[in-house]
Amino acid sequence: MKPDTNLTEWIIEQRRYLHTHPELSHQEKETKTYITSQLHGLGIETYSITGKDVIGIIKGDHPGKTVAIRSDMDALPILEETGLPFSSVNNGVMHACGHDGHMSILLGIARLLVSNKSAIHGTIHLLFQHAEEEVPGGAVEIVGANGLNNIEAIFGYHLWQPLKSGLIGVRQGPTMAGADRFIIRIFGKGGHGSMPEETIDPTLVISQIITQLHTIVSRSIKAIDQAVISIGELHSGTSYNVIPDTAFASGTVRYFNKDTSLLIEKRIEDIIAGVCKSFGATYELDYIHGDPPVLNDKALTAFIQKTAISLFGEEKVVEIDPILGSEDFSYYSHEIPASFTFIGVGKEDTPYGHHHPKFDIDEDMLPVGVELFTTGVLNYLRGGNEDEN
Amino acid sequence: MKPDTNLTEWIIEQRRYLHTHPELSHQEKETKTYITSQLHGLGIETYSITGKDVIGIIKGDHPGKTVAIRSDMDALPILEETGLPFSSVNNGVMHACGHDGHMSILLGIARLLVSNKSAIHGTIHLLFQHAEEEVPGGAVEIVGANGLNNIEAIFGYHLWQPLKSGLIGVRQGPTMAGADRFIIRIFGKGGHGSMPEETIDPTLVISQIITQLHTIVSRSIKAIDQAVISIGELHSGTSYNVIPDTAFASGTVRYFNKDTSLLIEKRIEDIIAGVCKSFGATYELDYIHGDPPVLNDKALTAFIQKTAISLFGEEKVVEIDPILGSEDFSYYSHEIPASFTFIGVGKEDTPYGHHHPKFDIDEDMLPVGVELFTTGVLNYLRGGNEDEN
Amino acid sequence: MKPDTNLTEWIIEQRRYLHTHPELSHQEKETKTYITSQLHGLGIETYSITGKDVIGIIKGDHPGKTVAIRSDMDALPILEETGLPFSSVNNGVMHACGHDGHMSILLGIARLLVSNKSAIHGTIHLLFQHAEEEVPGGAVEIVGANGLNNIEAIFGYHLWQPLKSGLIGVRQGPTMAGADRFIIRIFGKGGHGSMPEETIDPTLVISQIITQLHTIVSRSIKAIDQAVISIGELHSGTSYNVIPDTAFASGTVRYFNKDTSLLIEKRIEDIIAGVCKSFGATYELDYIHGDPPVLNDKALTAFIQKTAISLFGEEKVVEIDPILGSEDFSYYSHEIPASFTFIGVGKEDTPYGHHHPKFDIDEDMLPVGVELFTTGVLNYLRGGNEDEN
Amino acid sequence: MKPDTNLTEWIIEQRRYLHTHPELSHQEKETKTYITSQLHGLGIETYSITGKDVIGIIKGDHPGKTVAIRSDMDALPILEETGLPFSSVNNGVMHACGHDGHMSILLGIARLLVSNKSAIHGTIHLLFQHAEEEVPGGAVEIVGANGLNNIEAIFGYHLWQPLKSGLIGVRQGPTMAGADRFIIRIFGKGGHGSMPEETIDPTLVISQIITQLHTIVSRSIKAIDQAVISIGELHSGTSYNVIPDTAFASGTVRYFNKDTSLLIEKRIEDIIAGVCKSFGATYELDYIHGDPPVLNDKALTAFIQKTAISLFGEEKVVEIDPILGSEDFSYYSHEIPASFTFIGVGKEDTPYGHHHPKFDIDEDMLPVGVELFTTGVLNYLRGGNEDEN
Repeated sequence: MKPDTNLTEWIIEQRRYLHTHPELSHQEKETKTYITSQLHGLGIETYSITGKDVIGIIKGDHPGKTVAIRSDMDALPILEETGLPFSSVNNGVMHACGHDGHMSILLGIARLLVSNKSAIHGTIHLLFQHAEEEVPGGAVEIVGANGLNNIEAIFGYHLWQPLKSGLIGVRQGPTMAGADRFIIRIFGKGGHGSMPEETIDPTLVISQIITQLHTIVSRSIKAIDQAVISIGELHSGTSYNVIPDTAFASGTVRYFNKDTSLLIEKRIEDIIAGVCKSFGATYELDYIHGDPPVLNDKALTAFIQKTAISLFGEEKVVEIDPILGSEDFSYYSHEIPASFTFIGVGKEDTPYGHHHPKFDIDEDMLPVGVELFTTGVLNYLRGGNEDEN
Repeated sequence: MKPDTNLTEWIIEQRRYLHTHPELSHQEKETKTYITSQLHGLGIETYSITGKDVIGIIKGDHPGKTVAIRSDMDALPILEETGLPFSSVNNGVMHACGHDGHMSILLGIARLLVSNKSAIHGTIHLLFQHAEEEVPGGAVEIVGANGLNNIEAIFGYHLWQPLKSGLIGVRQGPTMAGADRFIIRIFGKGGHGSMPEETIDPTLVISQIITQLHTIVSRSIKAIDQAVISIGELHSGTSYNVIPDTAFASGTVRYFNKDTSLLIEKRIEDIIAGVCKSFGATYELDYIHGDPPVLNDKALTAFIQKTAISLFGEEKVVEIDPILGSEDFSYYSHEIPASFTFIGVGKEDTPYGHHHPKFDIDEDMLPVGVELFTTGVLNYLRGGNEDEN
Repeated sequence: MKPDTNLTEWIIEQRRYLHTHPELSHQEKETKTYITSQLHGLGIETYSITGKDVIGIIKGDHPGKTVAIRSDMDALPILEETGLPFSSVNNGVMHACGHDGHMSILLGIARLLVSNKSAIHGTIHLLFQHAEEEVPGGAVEIVGANGLNNIEAIFGYHLWQPLKSGLIGVRQGPTMAGADRFIIRIFGKGGHGSMPEETIDPTLVISQIITQLHTIVSRSIKAIDQAVISIGELHSGTSYNVIPDTAFASGTVRYFNKDTSLLIEKRIEDIIAGVCKSFGATYELDYIHGDPPVLNDKALTAFIQKTAISLFGEEKVVEIDPILGSEDFSYYSHEIPASFTFIGVGKEDTPYGHHHPKFDIDEDMLPVGVELFTTGVLNYLRGGNEDEN
Repeated sequence: MKPDTNLTEWIIEQRRYLHTHPELSHQEKETKTYITSQLHGLGIETYSITGKDVIGIIKGDHPGKTVAIRSDMDALPILEETGLPFSSVNNGVMHACGHDGHMSILLGIARLLVSNKSAIHGTIHLLFQHAEEEVPGGAVEIVGANGLNNIEAIFGYHLWQPLKSGLIGVRQGPTMAGADRFIIRIFGKGGHGSMPEETIDPTLVISQIITQLHTIVSRSIKAIDQAVISIGELHSGTSYNVIPDTAFASGTVRYFNKDTSLLIEKRIEDIIAGVCKSFGATYELDYIHGDPPVLNDKALTAFIQKTAISLFGEEKVVEIDPILGSEDFSYYSHEIPASFTFIGVGKEDTPYGHHHPKFDIDEDMLPVGVELFTTGVLNYLRGGNEDEN
């Protein structure tokens, strides 16, 4: 079920309008109003689980399962530098991750489905989720409010710059990383730099900790498991000749299975505790377990892969490596069968990565996304064996 | 030559007035005006080498050498918390190091000497120096302007809280440390915390450098030489999940002979260069050679020691260990015979160290300082062998 | 094509005889003689590429491709502690890795195939390879002598203790790790421990290097690539109070693609060079690229997987994770399509790992191996689509 | 009291004989016999406290104090390479530290004193001590057997290569370092180098400890205190690809006051315990407190200094820096007033340091040593104020 020229133009218009009016996470008020109005204009009823999301319901003419397709809605605190005629009018806020495109695809799917209810065996929820970019984000709020209670499977997707435009990227199992965050505070004893013997030097303690943290990945994590631990911030002291009382560092952890996350938390604390013991310092560690990994359901993903191959040809569908980025679609994937697909939008004239002030997408891939998930969801509800594109 | 009750009261009044009106380094305008006016009131002519200092000249009735006695004049950017009735009226500025007492001693010496010109064999310069607390400070400016050209020897002193009140502390040779400063900037390559392989992590580089710097004192400096290297500031990154491009650290070095300072500079650069090479980073190192060590002239110091013993008794005069603090009196000590003496002011009711918001001195030691240096300089000019106290 | 009771007993006899008479790598003289005699006894002609290996040739009644099945022959310098009645009679030498079983499987295959020449479409080489346990080993010698010139595909297998008995483990792509070795020599300057300033302390230098090496895996290797760097030996000094001239360390590297191996070599040298620069030491690094990774041909492995499922059921065939151990079968896999399969032999009564003095296998899996590869190779030569077991 | 030509020749003969017949620590049997026979030959009675030492007693004609002069007697396990005609006849044993000279000086003193009993006010013990080179050595045995019970003061000396021949080196207070020894054993968990996650890597743990130990001197020891911590031995593992169970290191500590020694012991254990905690390893630390520092009595040393100046001139007597080497004369110095003096023997033709296979002394300094201590002890016993040289 392929968008025609009219629909394609409409999808691109939607994307551009949304690109021009970005809103930050948890503040997607105008966006929600706009989406709601568009869905209502298509005759689609909507509801909201958290008050910040909006979900359109399309009931097919035939009985069947209930599935969801999800788009995110939020933008980033970035000053746009694309120079596009439809650039952001909200200064310092930009759709620099492609969520504008995600929404336009889901609106396109809505338009196609609503005019083909006779082909729908079951019910389709079009989930426009808020706050994907923040922790905690929209997905954990929706899951926390039991928002998936009636949904039997969920599909998600991301326009993906690292993947060449034209390609569809799929992967079974752990697909995007879990992401934790940690904050280390070291409490030493300050004093003058000329008399270190009167002090417990927290700058030395935290430096020693940071060098030692690298042994977690090198020693404690199996080579075939994946993990990253990076320190992003490190701050200690305000004067060159005064040893301060405290030091501070914060960092991020990436992983693909929960045991790795728990092991890393334990090892980080072991190292901090050990180094502090070495020097007589004390510490506080806040280890915040964030988004879990995205776990792509094997069967659901195989189904999307098969659909993509049948629509676009085998050479257009690639099995990708796990991605170290995180995505709160993961919360759904720990509740119900879920599959998250990557739609390549990388081109020579769109070389800037996600979150870059010049990030842009290849709009030609918007109708491709619409076709993939419209066809996919229809076939899936029909039992997954017939192909009607 | 011991101050009588009247003079003692006057000295204390001077100290309290000066304590109430502190000024920061290089900004000692009112202080200079006040001192000048006091000296003129005593009939003492003044001149200035740099425009910020003020020097009184007392010519004796007998011909002889020309010597100087030095006090510093500046206060610190500290909010006073002593609760003294004569606390600072300049909010956030405080005489928290005792320079108020130093000036009152030198004024007391002035009053004693000016009324005993018949005992003076030569000329005495009373040097009120600006900006001791800053680098570059007043002494290097005075030396740079050839301010010591006609001076044959110089005496200095510090009211000293770590030394028990009543005691006089002396030491020959290197007495207070040389102090250098260094700034390290590491240039890595930033990126997302989940993809360290795309980055050169400057936070790791600087942490490794900091741990390795400790091997300089432990390996490269002879045990019988003294040196301290301390990092005071360490800053890297602004976000927990982003590896930054650069990292920054600054620190202080203390030493007692120039070779040690040069060796440390070389070893710091070796370590930074080596660690940067290990990780593919680059760096900038600013190594600023600051105040040199105070080198107390052997004979001059022995003379002051002898004088102090004859005035106050052997049990009141102690040989002290080298002090890791620095003092720009050192510049004089590298030009002409110089001796820097410590006047104990530590008491149970003045337990707060120099630069503490509650720092205070034992005013009973002010006349002691006056007596020591008045007698000392008179005897010294007379040839050092007669005692007239 | 399943071994009957008679053949099964014979296979086990072979294994026990070979277990009793182990020989070290490159010294498998009696083993080779025994195997040769067994093959001749079955009417199979043999040849040798290197003089240390022996290869039986079975030509089928039908024309077709030429494929090989490979067993290794060498034992380990380990004192057997199994207490088995057929324990090693060569003191200090033991088949502690399962190569005895590998040979018995290949002999079993030989007996089955030689009596079924009418089912063979092509030619099968039964390759008994020497010296798998050493670097350089037998495979690199065979490849170096162009020993695979006429072979179009090769199958290998390993009896595998970590895999539960009864299971067959398969994997496409990089399956066993490449293994490199490195030796670090640090040249400092010795001296008495009380005067480190006269020395360049190689013990400190090598310790610093070792801690820093851990940042290679944590920073320079992508999370989705696998790598291990471990130091096995570290030696420095002979007296507690003398700083030695030199220090020594050696280690192993594991990886799954050549770029990783080259990157690690470069990063190890960067770190050593950088740390030596930090301390004024010099170094020698020998980095020896050893066995490359085993790369399982996708199609060949899928064929073996399909064959195993058809013979033993889906629940008996598992996709395994990459294995960090190395195996010189890898050399074949870089020349021609190759597939290496794992035959589970782990049981409660055989809990000891490979290379353990009490290592033993579950002999019930020997006929399973014979059946898998006999059927596999016959089907493969026939075109891979018919099943005749 | 200056040796005449005859005595000088005799002293040199003694030294050469003793040089030819060196014996190791605690094995100075022939040496003791020889010394005893020489003393008896001079009519001097002898006794022994431990059975290994020998002490001659010279009672003066006048009543007075009892003092001792000490020489050591042992040689080193070094193969002599001097090429001297009177080289060691005991292969692999050499007087490479000057103890041969020390004994000849004390014999010279004996000969001078025994013929001047009328000048002696009191009693002089000539203490030939065994085993100075070993820990535990002779001095601690002598002190342990209450050997100093009747001695009121003790003099010692060392022929000193780093000091220019002709000079006498003196120092009050801490003069030679205390020396401790420590042994670290780390208990991790071994395993294959390819699976570090199954191990606790003791090589990493000990490397981390060694780098961290350097922060003790740099952070915990006051700059004006002296301390050295050096690792001499570091051993871990026997195979490049196997992570071992344990690691071992040993080192030496030098210090000049007991508090420093105790602080270092505590800090070493803190660091080891902390690093082990970081990695889950355990440890054993043996910290052996060895020879304490040599503490030169202020008055006794000032007396020797005055004597030396009066005998050889001011320009020949130098105040030396503390020496990082240790000397078991220290045990006496913690019991009774003691002073240890350095006799310069460094010349262009004797450039090799103590313990070098080519070490030699300037024999011209032997009579100088005799003169210094003969005169010194006589004057000292007479009350220290008259000079009779």
